[in-house]
Amino acid sequence: MKIIVIGAAGLIGSAVVKALAGRHDIIGASRKAAERQVDLTDKASVQRLFDQVGSFDAVVCVAGGAAYKPLLELTDDEFAMSVNYKQMGQVNIARLAIPHLADGGSITLTTGFFSVEPPPNAAALAMANSAVNGFVIGASRELPRGLRINAVSPPFVGEFRLNGAKSTVESMTAADTALGYVDAVEGQMTGAVIDTRLYAKRPRA
Amino acid sequence: MKIIVIGAAGLIGSAVVKALAGRHDIIGASRKAAERQVDLTDKASVQRLFDQVGSFDAVVCVAGGAAYKPLLELTDDEFAMSVNYKQMGQVNIARLAIPHLADGGSITLTTGFFSVEPPPNAAALAMANSAVNGFVIGASRELPRGLRINAVSPPFVGEFRLNGAKSTVESMTAADTALGYVDAVEGQMTGAVIDTRLYAKRPRA
Repeated sequence: MKIIVIGAAGLIGSAVVKALAGRHDIIGASRKAAERQVDLTDKASVQRLFDQVGSFDAVVCVAGGAAYKPLLELTDDEFAMSVNYKQMGQVNIARLAIPHLADGGSITLTTGFFSVEPPPNAAALAMANSAVNGFVIGASRELPRGLRINAVSPPFVGEFRLNGAKSTVESMTAADTALGYVDAVEGQMTGAVIDTRLYAKRPRA
Repeated sequence: MKIIVIGAAGLIGSAVVKALAGRHDIIGASRKAAERQVDLTDKASVQRLFDQVGSFDAVVCVAGGAAYKPLLELTDDEFAMSVNYKQMGQVNIARLAIPHLADGGSITLTTGFFSVEPPPNAAALAMANSAVNGFVIGASRELPRGLRINAVSPPFVGEFRLNGAKSTVESMTAADTALGYVDAVEGQMTGAVIDTRLYAKRPRA
């Protein structure tokens, strides 16, 4: 399969590329490095990426940010950034990918366990992640030509730090997390929100 | 309790007012009719409403819309409307209400069962509803002074029609649906997404 990975230079993204690269043709894109540049907050830049690649079998997004700070300190701009980046950035990837995807192709987006089990300071993040989960379930009901769409919802990965503080919640490796993306791309599921904690410490061939 | 009901003139809103009015002081607001005018897409108009009322014990929002049409026909503007109205309109009600709420007061927002069980044509609606559910859960973790926040998630109510067609999914009465709002306001729960199908055909005193 020809697979576009957006966010290919990141911690999870590079593990996803590694997990898929052996048997697929991977086109990596990210905001700065990687083969191709793309900015999720700029719909035209996503459109440009897809036009350059032409037809493909899958797109995986492992990018997108949202504000993480106390509810009472969140500004209008931080809510807008969360909507435009993590939420609509990914929704627009799905919308724009549809005409480029080969029959039976797939869209895989990234949310996070904060959508269902948010700690303090995650109101905007939980909002944006939950929005993407809801969109994925809704969109799965009406995608044409056997196309599939799923969200991968990882916990913290590696030594993740938020606002400089080491996370006190459970974390797992990027390699284990990547298995959720592999299943989303190579499997048959659609409309799923994949909790990658299911893949923690899975033996790999 | 002094309770602001936003969307008081609507089908569910008027049932909520009726259910609460016997034992509480209700201030109804809506886009057109009702005691006070408010436009959810205009943050300043929500701020004005709260400033006029001053201090209150609860705010209930039974308003907010989102696009309901085929995924492949949804425009950027329709996604933006869904974000600004149903999603950020309600998120901003919660944010702006906090300093006005008396200790132990509550915020009750409205989502809908499309957030978890969307039919076709509900991708934008599912996105906006799910966003509010996620925000409610996240915000509940850090509200000060014993404040509570919940979302009520009703199915179709009454003879609801979408795009002119009578719904084929289950529906329930506005009076039964209102019981979910009563529990959110008078109960102790916080961070809950209340599926009002639990209240269908409940005997009432």
